[in-house]
Amino acid sequence: MEASAAVDSSPAAPAFEVSARPDTRKLVLSSPRPPSLREEVVGVVGKAFRPRASGSGSGSGGGRAPRCASWVLTALQCVFPVLQWGRGYTLESFRSDVMAGLTLASLGIPQSIGYANLAKLDPQYGLYTSVVPPLIYAVMGTSREIAIGPVAVVSLLLSSMIQKIADPAADPATYRSLVFTVTFLAGVFQVSFGLFRLGFLVDFLSHAAIVGFMAGAAIVIGMQQLKGLLGLSRFTNSTDVVSVIKAVYSALHDPWHPGNFFIGCSFLIFILATRFIGRRYKKFFWVSAISPLISVILSTVAVYATRADKHGVKIIQNVHAGLNPSSAKQIHLNGPHTAECAKIAIICAVIALTEAIAVGRSFASIRGYKLDGNKEMLAMGFSNVAGSLSSCYVATGSFSRTAVNFSAGARSTVSNIVMSVTVLITLELFMKFLYYTPMAVLASIILSALPGLIDIKEAHDIWKVDKMDFLTCLGAFVGVLFGSVEIGLAVALGISFAKIIIQSLRPQVEVLGRLQGTNIFCSIRQYPVACQTPSVLPIRIDTSFLCFINATVIKERIIEWVRGEVETSDGKNRERVQAVVLDLSSVVNIDTSGLAALEDIHKELVSLGIQMAIASPGWNAVQKMKVSQVVDRVGEDWIFMTVGEAVEACLAASKGTALEC
Amino acid sequence: MEASAAVDSSPAAPAFEVSARPDTRKLVLSSPRPPSLREEVVGVVGKAFRPRASGSGSGSGGGRAPRCASWVLTALQCVFPVLQWGRGYTLESFRSDVMAGLTLASLGIPQSIGYANLAKLDPQYGLYTSVVPPLIYAVMGTSREIAIGPVAVVSLLLSSMIQKIADPAADPATYRSLVFTVTFLAGVFQVSFGLFRLGFLVDFLSHAAIVGFMAGAAIVIGMQQLKGLLGLSRFTNSTDVVSVIKAVYSALHDPWHPGNFFIGCSFLIFILATRFIGRRYKKFFWVSAISPLISVILSTVAVYATRADKHGVKIIQNVHAGLNPSSAKQIHLNGPHTAECAKIAIICAVIALTEAIAVGRSFASIRGYKLDGNKEMLAMGFSNVAGSLSSCYVATGSFSRTAVNFSAGARSTVSNIVMSVTVLITLELFMKFLYYTPMAVLASIILSALPGLIDIKEAHDIWKVDKMDFLTCLGAFVGVLFGSVEIGLAVALGISFAKIIIQSLRPQVEVLGRLQGTNIFCSIRQYPVACQTPSVLPIRIDTSFLCFINATVIKERIIEWVRGEVETSDGKNRERVQAVVLDLSSVVNIDTSGLAALEDIHKELVSLGIQMAIASPGWNAVQKMKVSQVVDRVGEDWIFMTVGEAVEACLAASKGTALEC
Repeated sequence: MEASAAVDSSPAAPAFEVSARPDTRKLVLSSPRPPSLREEVVGVVGKAFRPRASGSGSGSGGGRAPRCASWVLTALQCVFPVLQWGRGYTLESFRSDVMAGLTLASLGIPQSIGYANLAKLDPQYGLYTSVVPPLIYAVMGTSREIAIGPVAVVSLLLSSMIQKIADPAADPATYRSLVFTVTFLAGVFQVSFGLFRLGFLVDFLSHAAIVGFMAGAAIVIGMQQLKGLLGLSRFTNSTDVVSVIKAVYSALHDPWHPGNFFIGCSFLIFILATRFIGRRYKKFFWVSAISPLISVILSTVAVYATRADKHGVKIIQNVHAGLNPSSAKQIHLNGPHTAECAKIAIICAVIALTEAIAVGRSFASIRGYKLDGNKEMLAMGFSNVAGSLSSCYVATGSFSRTAVNFSAGARSTVSNIVMSVTVLITLELFMKFLYYTPMAVLASIILSALPGLIDIKEAHDIWKVDKMDFLTCLGAFVGVLFGSVEIGLAVALGISFAKIIIQSLRPQVEVLGRLQGTNIFCSIRQYPVACQTPSVLPIRIDTSFLCFINATVIKERIIEWVRGEVETSDGKNRERVQAVVLDLSSVVNIDTSGLAALEDIHKELVSLGIQMAIASPGWNAVQKMKVSQVVDRVGEDWIFMTVGEAVEACLAASKGTALEC
Repeated sequence: MEASAAVDSSPAAPAFEVSARPDTRKLVLSSPRPPSLREEVVGVVGKAFRPRASGSGSGSGGGRAPRCASWVLTALQCVFPVLQWGRGYTLESFRSDVMAGLTLASLGIPQSIGYANLAKLDPQYGLYTSVVPPLIYAVMGTSREIAIGPVAVVSLLLSSMIQKIADPAADPATYRSLVFTVTFLAGVFQVSFGLFRLGFLVDFLSHAAIVGFMAGAAIVIGMQQLKGLLGLSRFTNSTDVVSVIKAVYSALHDPWHPGNFFIGCSFLIFILATRFIGRRYKKFFWVSAISPLISVILSTVAVYATRADKHGVKIIQNVHAGLNPSSAKQIHLNGPHTAECAKIAIICAVIALTEAIAVGRSFASIRGYKLDGNKEMLAMGFSNVAGSLSSCYVATGSFSRTAVNFSAGARSTVSNIVMSVTVLITLELFMKFLYYTPMAVLASIILSALPGLIDIKEAHDIWKVDKMDFLTCLGAFVGVLFGSVEIGLAVALGISFAKIIIQSLRPQVEVLGRLQGTNIFCSIRQYPVACQTPSVLPIRIDTSFLCFINATVIKERIIEWVRGEVETSDGKNRERVQAVVLDLSSVVNIDTSGLAALEDIHKELVSLGIQMAIASPGWNAVQKMKVSQVVDRVGEDWIFMTVGEAVEACLAASKGTALEC
């Protein structure tokens, strides 16, 4: 709103001085030139590279050397927040963090193995991903609770897209090298998003789209687990529901071993039961946190004891002990698939960031502090770049593990370091133990994590509030389920942008009326009590960008109204419309088509013998109307700061005419 | 603007009655429910199929039969405007129309032959296209001056796109059948645009895009004429500048005959000279109108007399006398290329409509009447459907011929009928004469029509007013010139829509200040004289759609400001910000992300101990804030109709707090 006013009689209104009041009419046309496109771009880019003072005012006095040192310290603290919170870190916090880290590791180890399986990698790669990225994040990240490592959706994304280039079963070496290349590029993209302050790119996936996408991905991941749960040998590489159901249907005709199904189901029920207990009795939450680990141990011991693998129960078999090996040589940036890898990397980078920032923000808001989106992107990006060099795939913040970390009382990212070290010890000492772990138990661990991704209540709320948003949500869901992950994302993005275009396209014109006894003009549709001024028709253009897509519609709507008013009021004894006031207060910007529409409206009104006035244009609009000579055509005297002034002037002018006649 | 007010002291302000003033606060929350998505869609669709009363009020009394008859008459008049203007048609108008029609034909015949050549069809097809579509348009169209027939840009579009499917030189029959199929489909698309009131689709090509597109197309068409002008035998099928220059360069190494170039250039100079005379001396405009016909006659006679065709001057040769043959059997709607034809047809339909409506509107505005866009679409569509059945290709309104028709004093579409009949007579009697017409003279006729398509002044004006619009213009120009016609269109559309997205994305938040001595709140950047209220920070959100793409940016900008205010004013003796007023008057719509942002801002302000108030939300925003319980969280008492009221309430509350302390 360019200008609005309290009700005149308001008792608290400030003392009124006629002499001090500036001439509002001159103010509109003499308003300063808005920043040009070039200045705006320079401003945005400049801001991106200026280091921000982090709250603490850098002293105004002092010599050059201390200021320089303090600037370096500030910059370092900016990049490594650990330097800031590390100083106040206490032994008590450390004790909490160690407990939280151990709990986290007990959940993280089985999940990592399961997600590696989902990403079609050997189990150790999931564990590697739980070692390096959390360490890097611990010194660079701003979230205190987030647990970094492999997550379900990104694992699915990677495998579903990369296996179109290389088959993980037939050529695991090429597949792995593509995975590391994608991870490296995803990290580079994330770092550049952070450096260039492109955090807004994450917003392109709206909340509604994420709700639908996550729910679709959860069902797809669940369907993929049927392979492990049923112990199938043949399965499809497609992720859509139709292919998977077909594959399961045809595989069930082969001989299959109910042992797998039995193991998977019983441990799934066990994990879900412990989670139920954990939710019911808050102090037993750790039961649900360690139940996956217990499941792995129990099932492995059981299979080893009964030699069930000889009777058709599928086991992991491929295990490889030891620290993360270097994978720098497996990253191929000038290979034949680099363009495809870059495409996959950008999708993974955005999805991973979206998840991490959503998780981080929700827990930060519980604890009452703020995440810095750009720093988070830097931290995530460097974690993934470092990860890609040490045999990790794309890591991000996991919702389920972050919740456990939070409940276990984590105070800082030290819990991530503790988890990382625990996983490292597991990699060194206990890897051989995993040889007999049944695949079905991994499936049940993944399955047990999925319900958290499906948020039916949120979808229902979206439906209640905004039908178009629900359409985005539904589009993402159906696209992921029946097409593929990329199709789901493309549909969601398409609907989201179409929403903006449609919103710009809808004719947004409101006839205004005066609220009785006040000088407030408001839409007569929204406030039916408002009364129309008989001979002046104030019309508000309700779009922030009067442009090619809506200019004609708005123009025709206005001309139709004015003609309607003129025609219907001709015969009756009602006063004829003598002036139209166009309220441009909502119009932030205008393009040449919008200016042409204003000219056409003016021409049409002149031909009908009606005066046109413009009220409260924004500075961009003023500037462009001046340059394109719309101001000259309409007349400088007919541009006002408020609708009220414009209406008064029109009434005065029409009275003058009436007297002359 | 949701509400605005005149300066309080305005002498013409109406008498003020406190008792009559409604309680504005209650009004906001009790405003009626806005129409739902379903109601809006039903409204738009319903409006599309409801016949509109054409100005004359259908009497309120009267029996059923006469009303029904008058309804039929109105509907008929609606479809065939000739029934409306035909009644008042006078002999004098007819005399003017006959003269205009004959002048039009003298320009139309050579142009039609030339454009047929550009469309890679035999000359008679251009003439056919000047017979049937003008007749249909004459009874259905609403423009009085427009001249219907083949035009340069559509001819280029057709040939450049269809020759990718079938080679017009090697397989002319298939090529022709594709041309008729495309024409038929284009007509069907245009009819459906008219029926479903999709006129706004034409607006998707903004004025700036059309300026660039037309200029690019004119240069491409000019380059294509080098073949005829130089009498080349080998030429390229590509339309981009690089290919054409290469083709001309390599062809110039072959033996070529300067006779072609001599004929072409001399008649081009002749036509341009007559046009210069016509512009200089208004009463000689007919000289420029008939100069192409004179050129054809002179050059044909010259070639016939000197037998120059034996010495390398290329002549038309293929001529076929007689009326339009039926081409219904050549339209293949279930052939293998139907999908491609439909794609080409929709591009041609939109371009043809864009040109016709632009031409029609500009002349209608000179004569002071209004075109009905939807009726024009119907008329054009039926013209092309009928044309496709009678060997015509896509026809539309030609700018150069419409200008001649207008200057020759056309009063109605009867001049189109006169032209059509004249072309018909030519087809019957004078076709054999065209055998010896040199190709070079056709090239010079087309070339002479091109400068009208390049509007450098307009491009300069666009640059001056709006740089982003100029980018659209330039994109279309460069795309057509160096890519192809479709690439140019795609680039223009892409930039245009990106413009809307970028506009939505830019953070649009303004701090408001009170204009001294008034109750007007306005942006302190636009009006630096406005002063900020010390303890209340009013902020206007300047976007009409607070949605996923801008919600986070806006939220962060607001929180940053508030924190900045709190932090910088803490140490000093300035009053601390105690309340923030969010002015939502520009926000027409809001989605779930926008609502979440409002909630987050509220949460953040509460944590800083700052009161939040919302001023003048639109009805969509009110409705959604109610459903999503944002109203409950902010508090019903903190939602106001104007910024002024909100600021007063905040001031009163903070005074209250101050007293309590």
